[in-house]
Amino acid sequence: MSEKPLVVIIMGSKSDEELAKKAEEVLKEHCVPYEVRVLSAHRTPKELDKYLEESKEYIKVYIAIAGLAAHLPGVIASRVEQPVIGVPRDVKLMGLDALFSIVQMPPGVPVAAVGIDNAKNAAHLAIRILKVAGFKPCK
Amino acid sequence: MSEKPLVVIIMGSKSDEELAKKAEEVLKEHCVPYEVRVLSAHRTPKELDKYLEESKEYIKVYIAIAGLAAHLPGVIASRVEQPVIGVPRDVKLMGLDALFSIVQMPPGVPVAAVGIDNAKNAAHLAIRILKVAGFKPCK
Amino acid sequence: MSEKPLVVIIMGSKSDEELAKKAEEVLKEHCVPYEVRVLSAHRTPKELDKYLEESKEYIKVYIAIAGLAAHLPGVIASRVEQPVIGVPRDVKLMGLDALFSIVQMPPGVPVAAVGIDNAKNAAHLAIRILKVAGFKPCK
Amino acid sequence: MSEKPLVVIIMGSKSDEELAKKAEEVLKEHCVPYEVRVLSAHRTPKELDKYLEESKEYIKVYIAIAGLAAHLPGVIASRVEQPVIGVPRDVKLMGLDALFSIVQMPPGVPVAAVGIDNAKNAAHLAIRILKVAGFKPCK
Amino acid sequence: MSEKPLVVIIMGSKSDEELAKKAEEVLKEHCVPYEVRVLSAHRTPKELDKYLEESKEYIKVYIAIAGLAAHLPGVIASRVEQPVIGVPRDVKLMGLDALFSIVQMPPGVPVAAVGIDNAKNAAHLAIRILKVAGFKPCK
Amino acid sequence: MSEKPLVVIIMGSKSDEELAKKAEEVLKEHCVPYEVRVLSAHRTPKELDKYLEESKEYIKVYIAIAGLAAHLPGVIASRVEQPVIGVPRDVKLMGLDALFSIVQMPPGVPVAAVGIDNAKNAAHLAIRILKVAGFKPCK
Amino acid sequence: MSEKPLVVIIMGSKSDEELAKKAEEVLKEHCVPYEVRVLSAHRTPKELDKYLEESKEYIKVYIAIAGLAAHLPGVIASRVEQPVIGVPRDVKLMGLDALFSIVQMPPGVPVAAVGIDNAKNAAHLAIRILKVAGFKPCK
Amino acid sequence: MSEKPLVVIIMGSKSDEELAKKAEEVLKEHCVPYEVRVLSAHRTPKELDKYLEESKEYIKVYIAIAGLAAHLPGVIASRVEQPVIGVPRDVKLMGLDALFSIVQMPPGVPVAAVGIDNAKNAAHLAIRILKVAGFKPCK
Repeated sequence: MSEKPLVVIIMGSKSDEELAKKAEEVLKEHCVPYEVRVLSAHRTPKELDKYLEESKEYIKVYIAIAGLAAHLPGVIASRVEQPVIGVPRDVKLMGLDALFSIVQMPPGVPVAAVGIDNAKNAAHLAIRILKVAGFKPCK
Repeated sequence: MSEKPLVVIIMGSKSDEELAKKAEEVLKEHCVPYEVRVLSAHRTPKELDKYLEESKEYIKVYIAIAGLAAHLPGVIASRVEQPVIGVPRDVKLMGLDALFSIVQMPPGVPVAAVGIDNAKNAAHLAIRILKVAGFKPCK
Repeated sequence: MSEKPLVVIIMGSKSDEELAKKAEEVLKEHCVPYEVRVLSAHRTPKELDKYLEESKEYIKVYIAIAGLAAHLPGVIASRVEQPVIGVPRDVKLMGLDALFSIVQMPPGVPVAAVGIDNAKNAAHLAIRILKVAGFKPCK
Repeated sequence: MSEKPLVVIIMGSKSDEELAKKAEEVLKEHCVPYEVRVLSAHRTPKELDKYLEESKEYIKVYIAIAGLAAHLPGVIASRVEQPVIGVPRDVKLMGLDALFSIVQMPPGVPVAAVGIDNAKNAAHLAIRILKVAGFKPCK
Repeated sequence: MSEKPLVVIIMGSKSDEELAKKAEEVLKEHCVPYEVRVLSAHRTPKELDKYLEESKEYIKVYIAIAGLAAHLPGVIASRVEQPVIGVPRDVKLMGLDALFSIVQMPPGVPVAAVGIDNAKNAAHLAIRILKVAGFKPCK
Repeated sequence: MSEKPLVVIIMGSKSDEELAKKAEEVLKEHCVPYEVRVLSAHRTPKELDKYLEESKEYIKVYIAIAGLAAHLPGVIASRVEQPVIGVPRDVKLMGLDALFSIVQMPPGVPVAAVGIDNAKNAAHLAIRILKVAGFKPCK
Repeated sequence: MSEKPLVVIIMGSKSDEELAKKAEEVLKEHCVPYEVRVLSAHRTPKELDKYLEESKEYIKVYIAIAGLAAHLPGVIASRVEQPVIGVPRDVKLMGLDALFSIVQMPPGVPVAAVGIDNAKNAAHLAIRILKVAGFKPCK
Repeated sequence: MSEKPLVVIIMGSKSDEELAKKAEEVLKEHCVPYEVRVLSAHRTPKELDKYLEESKEYIKVYIAIAGLAAHLPGVIASRVEQPVIGVPRDVKLMGLDALFSIVQMPPGVPVAAVGIDNAKNAAHLAIRILKVAGFKPCK
């Protein structure tokens, strides 16, 4: 993709890849330029910080996929000013642990949660946000 | 407020007013023009439809507050193309009923859920979205 | 079936079909004339409204099957005056999301919830209601 | 009320009275003749059986209110052929114990569950059922 | 078994048979005379009442296995004066519906709940109770 | 009480006293000789062991009241051969932590769980067990 | 306290202070030198990073208290190599959101969770850890 | 292993072995001397007590793995003064029963809970604790 990415999909670990693919499909279908990263709030905090520092110059919407104690979306939201969409992944406890870790953020640091394992809706939500900024999806 | 509203806060019922006020405070503090409506997906579906039809010409972000079987945000998301933020209100079951009714939307009709009773974060999230579109909050 | 349907089974999506079949079996067994529709409160709200407008002239009991944020039964209940029976389908969270979305309706817009995935009981309940109105099932 | 009751509100215990009153208000408002009983599936099973045997000659809809292990609605549904509406009361566990005990009935013995503590909706649902049978509420 | 049974295992439905077998094994191993019945509080209430009326002359401990809205143990406890042990079976909701329906009985009508699907412990508990009454298990 | 106690009520801590009183009332009312102890599986394990060693010569039924990680009933059941009744106390999590800690015992070490905070039913269950052994309550 | 602190109690926000006091009492009682900080993983991530960078030279055990999406303990555990104890605070959902956010950490980044609101046990656990390292508490 | 063990992994039953192996792998990889035991708080309380009495002379950290009503870690914590790490195993209820039984300990008897089935983190936490005491893992 030659265009500058507008959206990034960040996975906490490689095992979130299947969900990431579902978000990618929706973004592709609507011709949204995006990039994908595997970066963990816990295991690679410095790489994450570095990426966020750079990417906040061009990324419009962050999508973060994480299971268990899913801190990734919240940590991103505390470092960038763009909207952050969190996708809770069902690894244990039917995904309730991830949902609560994502949605119950303290006032001032919002994360937009979508449904458990529902990476498609993260992409759809990102597109709605981009459209507010004048982006025209091809579909 | 003389400016055209960019955000609307829709409550399912008058009893959600206290939460709405918290979202209003944040929006005011950041000089975001907004309007407030009391419209129910169940009790006033026609008024809701009518309002959505009109407002989708100027509103950039919808915030919907609802408790119990909180259908309001999802119903709005199925009728407009803008981002819809849902605030689950704790009326029963610690707000889990509202959270699930808001966040577990089917693919293609996304709602951005924020934390239970966390109307402030709905406003903060709306501001992040507006900023993507070039809006400059005063704070 | 040449007789005018008394009951309709509405599915939120094609994937609810297996449950719908279970309700159909019970209705057939008791010789209750019925029809089946696939109509979504979120993806096809206009078709749903249109169908409800027409069907309320002859349908006596609405059965709605839905999973996740199961708004379908509640939305129907807000548009017709007949009894609406909701069947929560276990798609995620063991069906608790669907159960709460169906049963926790606000005062004035009742939905009759039956057990998770228990489409048979929706049909049995519909028959009990029809019998109040003088309908004689063949079994 | 001189008319023959069409609806009965059965409480498992005197402590459910406050909820019963909410159902009564709705029924009165719509001019539905009704009666009220305190009968327990566990503490007064014989009196319950006797009442059901007699009342099934004239009652069209049973409303049963119960908390904890709320067996009352299910036991009624196993003894009469009319529709039975169960109101789960929040005594412990936010009413989840009562909700599950009411809604998760085995196939063939349906109970129509309404929301936790939502006795009003039990009355509204009863009225919808009566209207199928030609009853004209005054409101 | 020529001896008079001291324990009965009652299943709500044939599908509970696998669990019943586990309780049987333990009882056999300890030489406890027992009998087994399939009787439903909802589908065969009269047969259940009849059996309880007769069996209460010789049965010392009732074991009742049931899933979903598991009313069987509670209904038995309301009709006999012997100890009743309830085994919640995981049919839906991980067995939480059955556990709550069994354990949350109103004061005065106790049921002794054991763990979800843990029919063995029902038998072990029955043996402990019989030993209080002087029964000598062979193991 | 001059008679040898048949039942003991063991509390994990002094703060369980209010619940213990409810069990005592029922036992007194039925003229069951009993004793009361405050003994913790965690804080006074040796005193508990010592008491169990002595008491198992005369106690017929153990009632144990505990909140949080309620290990007390299970620990007693692993040390004596009599029936042990566990009363889960609601200290946190609506008593679900205590209920699960009490009821989910491994096969071979049964505890009879009664409802959350339902110490009365522990006493009623104890009386049912004593009656199997020929005890005649005065009521 | 002139001695170098061995333990730090970090609160996510001032509102966690009451719990922090409970941990402090236990530490004081056992003569453990400690310090207290208010630092948020979300609102003051840089100050937190800075403090961790410095403190990891002398702190032996980190205690982190947080409610809602309680990321604080996990974020600390990803930045220091010492044991981190997390205290979930009940702000919403009975503290389940905080418990899950704290305990469900990915492999390799452990947090030691104690009970909901149980700051005392965090201090007791810290003391047990210090004793492994030869620390002699005064009590 | 010729060195004196510093850590012990205690399983409540043989069926916990697979989880134990995961903790072992991590300990081996870091060259931590350890031993493994199968000892139940309920089925072999005396053997457990005996082992704890002996091992507390040399063990620095106890890891206890248990499912269902997971009393093992708490019972160990009440008998030794070392840190005890509890691993809740998912046998029923998604492991919530084990998690609550482990983490909700009364003040004064702390257990360090790690995530459900997350035996690896128990080992990682043990290593962090040993490092406070000067232990140098080989990795």
